[in-house]
This record gives sequence, structure tokens and C-alpha cells, in this order.
Amino acid sequence: MALGSRGFSLLRGHLGGRAMPSGTLRGAARRGPEGRRESVLQRHEATVISGTEMAKQIQKEVQRGVEAWLALGHERPHLSIVLVGDNPASHTYVRNKIRAASAIGICSELILKPKEVSQEELLDITDQLNMDPKVSGILVQLPLPEHVDERTICNGIAPGKDVDGFHIINVGRLCLDQHSFIPATAGAVWEIIKRTGIETFGKSVVVVGRSKHVGLPIAMLLHTDGDHERPGGDATVTIAHRYTPREQLKTQTRLADIVVVAAGVPKLITPDMVKEGAAVIDVGINYICDPVTGKTKLVGDVDFEAVRKKASFITPVPGGVGPVTVATLLRNTLLAAQKVVY
Amino acid sequence: MALGSRGFSLLRGHLGGRAMPSGTLRGAARRGPEGRRESVLQRHEATVISGTEMAKQIQKEVQRGVEAWLALGHERPHLSIVLVGDNPASHTYVRNKIRAASAIGICSELILKPKEVSQEELLDITDQLNMDPKVSGILVQLPLPEHVDERTICNGIAPGKDVDGFHIINVGRLCLDQHSFIPATAGAVWEIIKRTGIETFGKSVVVVGRSKHVGLPIAMLLHTDGDHERPGGDATVTIAHRYTPREQLKTQTRLADIVVVAAGVPKLITPDMVKEGAAVIDVGINYICDPVTGKTKLVGDVDFEAVRKKASFITPVPGGVGPVTVATLLRNTLLAAQKVVY
Repeated sequence: MALGSRGFSLLRGHLGGRAMPSGTLRGAARRGPEGRRESVLQRHEATVISGTEMAKQIQKEVQRGVEAWLALGHERPHLSIVLVGDNPASHTYVRNKIRAASAIGICSELILKPKEVSQEELLDITDQLNMDPKVSGILVQLPLPEHVDERTICNGIAPGKDVDGFHIINVGRLCLDQHSFIPATAGAVWEIIKRTGIETFGKSVVVVGRSKHVGLPIAMLLHTDGDHERPGGDATVTIAHRYTPREQLKTQTRLADIVVVAAGVPKLITPDMVKEGAAVIDVGINYICDPVTGKTKLVGDVDFEAVRKKASFITPVPGGVGPVTVATLLRNTLLAAQKVVY
Repeated sequence: MALGSRGFSLLRGHLGGRAMPSGTLRGAARRGPEGRRESVLQRHEATVISGTEMAKQIQKEVQRGVEAWLALGHERPHLSIVLVGDNPASHTYVRNKIRAASAIGICSELILKPKEVSQEELLDITDQLNMDPKVSGILVQLPLPEHVDERTICNGIAPGKDVDGFHIINVGRLCLDQHSFIPATAGAVWEIIKRTGIETFGKSVVVVGRSKHVGLPIAMLLHTDGDHERPGGDATVTIAHRYTPREQLKTQTRLADIVVVAAGVPKLITPDMVKEGAAVIDVGINYICDPVTGKTKLVGDVDFEAVRKKASFITPVPGGVGPVTVATLLRNTLLAAQKVVY
């Protein structure tokens, strides 16, 4: 368990306690040091889950796994990353992955290609990496230029080296609750929920967003059987998306014990949409222009400051799901080296 | 559109009209032929969707497709069915499939094996059928004996001949909204909804049951994007299952515009669980002992007589999803012969 918290932790009675209705005060009032009235035992704000801390913990575990693996005389796990074009966000993500890999003893190489690269050349590259015994895991950073079919490229990676879990075989196996490489973001949401001790069995979950790389695998992990080969969360899961009417979405999220948002819409989830005491996991990555500073700012899909007053647990953006995603990718790389999935 | 209806159709104002609350009477009262008071324009009972009629329609379409295919000089589509052991329900299903195939000009063969057959022998059989150019589609009737791994057998069928859609590649493609062989029951639910004109876009759907052969593919078809390679229903879909608490299930089904039940629990869905005017699709197949006659009787998962008073559309059991499932399987066989999926 790696729990971080921000603000108002001093008087919090217990983790996961139900928050009071917004605006309701509970408990005695007293004078503060400066003589102002302060409320006591009230406004149970959500515990802010520190993804940064949790990622450190997972990376420490993976690092120990790497060391044990090397101690057995095996080769160092090796992650090959193919990066096409000059999308700044993609370059940032890749840099973070390489840095984190290096920190825990996973070797990595970056194969940079201009955005004009042909699909055939990319398939030649993945073919070579597939056959190279020193390469444990292969990751082709998405998105790819329009003239390249992402599905063809994802299927061109050997399933046993497919650390992103996007190959059709890994998708199928995930959906059948078999061992597979779990897409890193979905794996991160799972880790955050499980390590925080948020119950999923028989609980109501809304996943907002149905993308094949994020929303769908999250819904798969959470609704499936806890007794299967790859255990699921046994939650009742609602999959909402761009065509879910606003009122219907609100009805659903207000019923949910856990809301996972991966929609790419800033402030999509407002406090009136959240049940008190719900856990809110924000997978959104949105770069917006801060109206105050005029600078570009990273925000999620949740109105964080308002929703934290109502939720029991909440992940911030940045510093929530993002860092844990990098950590689960590195764990996948170790698993690929160990050939425990395939 | 193939709509059948039972009872109370005389005064029904329009298809899909909202039913009146149970017990509410609307409109004038008049004396009937025998002088009894009869209510007029009231208790809008659900339209009972005749799966039997719809199956005939689909089979007619497939028959025309087969004739056109033969007219082009191609070989007659051929379905090979492998049946293991002596499960009476399995034998009935297989007989129905063979009879329906024959009626529309699809050739079929039945390969019977005793329940002691080894997994290796079954894989040898599917290997031979995979290589046989006269075989268009292969179906291994499930369930298989415990000593045989069903997943291994499903993956042993060539994806292009896998008319049940259970091969890992077909599962993966279905989940990625690509063309694939859609499992027949899920295909049947889709056809029933679409041919009846039940709207799914932006609607709320509950799928009760998360099995990999039925509940999951139904949820996949209904929640996914209508503009993708294999169009989905664009509905907001909730997946419920055995661990969904009863009250939570009721809350969800009462919100749903469409309830699809594939749980295998007689009378799981009662009228208090259904929103007025909802469409109810019953995928249940339960053999129970009729307390009146003492005979075995086939029932679904819905309290049919009670729920039909509240729903706008309802499928009966028998005569609902079952016959349409056979029809969609035969369509898959024609598609396999035409090699339009792979």
C-alpha cells in the first residue's frame, strides 16, 4: 500500500471513510491559533492517491525482480522502443520510459524514425526485433502517422514481446481472462485500486471511455471473475462513452462505487456526478492553456479540487495514473524477459 | 422486420408504445360480447418478438445467398459438426442445426465421438477439417468432457472456418470491432434488436451474464462504435453477473432501455426490475420441472407473463433467441464459404 494524501489529513478519522455532504459541517467548532473559528472532524476530503509514490514502490519490486533474474545468470531485460515522427507528447512519454527503465536496471534502446517511414520498414524493424534474442520487449509508441495502419504494426510484434499488450492475441487472451500482457494503463488502474485496498467485488464501477487501449481493458479487468486464470475484479461494470447522454452518465456515475475516467475531456466529472465516498480514478491526459498563467498545463478528466471534497479516494493529474503506467510497463518487460506469460 | 405478437394485439396503438403502469387502466370501459366489462386501450402489453418467424426470414436470406453462390459456380457451403458424448441437449441443438442447414441448401456432416475421445484425437479431426477444401465451416459442440480443454480445441479450428467465433483471433477481432465470425447467440441478439427496430444509440443496456460465449460478445456488440469496421450499437452497457448484488441489479435493470438476460436463472427478471416500455431479450435456456404437469419444460430467465405487461418488446422462450441463433450460425457458414471475413 502506498498512500499519499494532500491537505486536511490531520483530522481525517479513517481512510475511506464516507465524506460528509459538501457544505455540511460535522463535529465541534473551536478557536484556532489566530482565534478564527475552525471546523473539526468535518469535510472528510478524499485521500489523494500518489501515483508517484506507488510507481516508486512497483519499480522497486521490479528492480528486485531484475536483480534476482540476473543473479540466476540470465541476460538483463531489454526494452526496444520504436518512435516515429516528432510528436512532443510521444517524445516525453518515451523519455520517461527510458529513464525509468534505466533506473531499475532494464536496458533499453530507442529506434527513431522520421514520420515518412513506410509501414513495410516498420514491419521489417519489428521482424528483426522479434528475432533478436537479446530483445525482451518491444514497444511501438502510438499514435503512428496516418499512412501506417496501427493494427498491422501491433500485430507485427511477437505476442511474447508485446509489452504494450496490443497484439490481437494479447487482446483476445485478456478478454478470455487468460494470462496476457495487460496494457500498461489498464494495469496501472488495477494496481492503484488493489494496492489502495479499494474493494471491487460486487461493487458498481463506471468506466468512462471505450478506447481499445485504455477503457476497454480496464472494463475487462474489473468486471471479470476473480477465480479465473487472470483474476478479475468481479465488479458490475458500466461502459460509458461519447454517445452516453450527459444525464445518463450522471445517473450512472452517481451510483458508482468507483469511477474510472478515460475520456480526454477536462472537468468531465464534476462533484454532482459523484457519490459520496466513491473512489475516482482519473486517466485523462489533457494539455490546456492555464487562463491565469497563459502556460500549457496538464489536467485530467476530473474537476479535482471539487470532487476531492466528495470522494473517498482520488488520483491527481499529473502524479496519478501516469507514473504507475510507466511502472507497469517495466513490469511487463521483466515478465517478457522471464517468459512467464508465453 | 419480422414481428410476431401474442395476445392483446387488437387494441395496441403502435409498436413500441410505452406500456401503462401495471394495474393502471386507461381509456373507456365497455361491455363485451358476454356483457362483462372490458377495458379498452389499456395494459399495452409487450410485442412478443417471434424468433421463429425472424429465423425463417434470415434463413430465407441465407438460402438466397447460397443459391446465388452456387449460380456463380462455387461449391455448396459445407458445415462439419463435431459432437462428443451423449449430452441430450447437445444432441438436440446439433439436430436442429443440421435440419436447418439442410432446409436452406447448406451441406453438413456430423462427426460423433464417444465422451472418452482424447484431446489429441479431437485436434487431429479439426486439423483434417481445417485442411479439407470442401469444408467451409467447423463447429465443435460445447460443452466438451472435462479431460478436454475447450480453449485448446476452439483455438485448433482455423479462424476462417470458425463459424462459432470462439477462436482467440475471432474473439480478439470482435473486441477490436474488426470483421470476425460473431458468436451465433450474440449475433442473434443483435439481429433481434436491429430487425425489430429497437434503438440502441445512446440508450442504456444491461447485459446480465458475462460468459465468454454469450454475455461478453453481446456487451461488445452493443457498446461499441457504430462507425467502426464491424459496427456496434453505441449503447451505454452495464455488464452484470452472479456477484452483482440483487438490489444493484434491480437498480440497473430499472434504468435500462434494453435488458438482455443470459444468466441461466429462471425468473431472474421480474416486472419490478423492468422499466416500463423497456425491451427485454431473454437468452436463458433452463429446463425445469413443471409443477403442474410434472414434465420437463423449457423456460428462460425472465418471468415472461408478468414482464410482458410492462415491456415494449419481449422475446419468449422457447421461440425467441434460440431459433435466430441457428439462423445466424448458418449465415456464418455461408460467410465462411464465401471467405468474406478472412
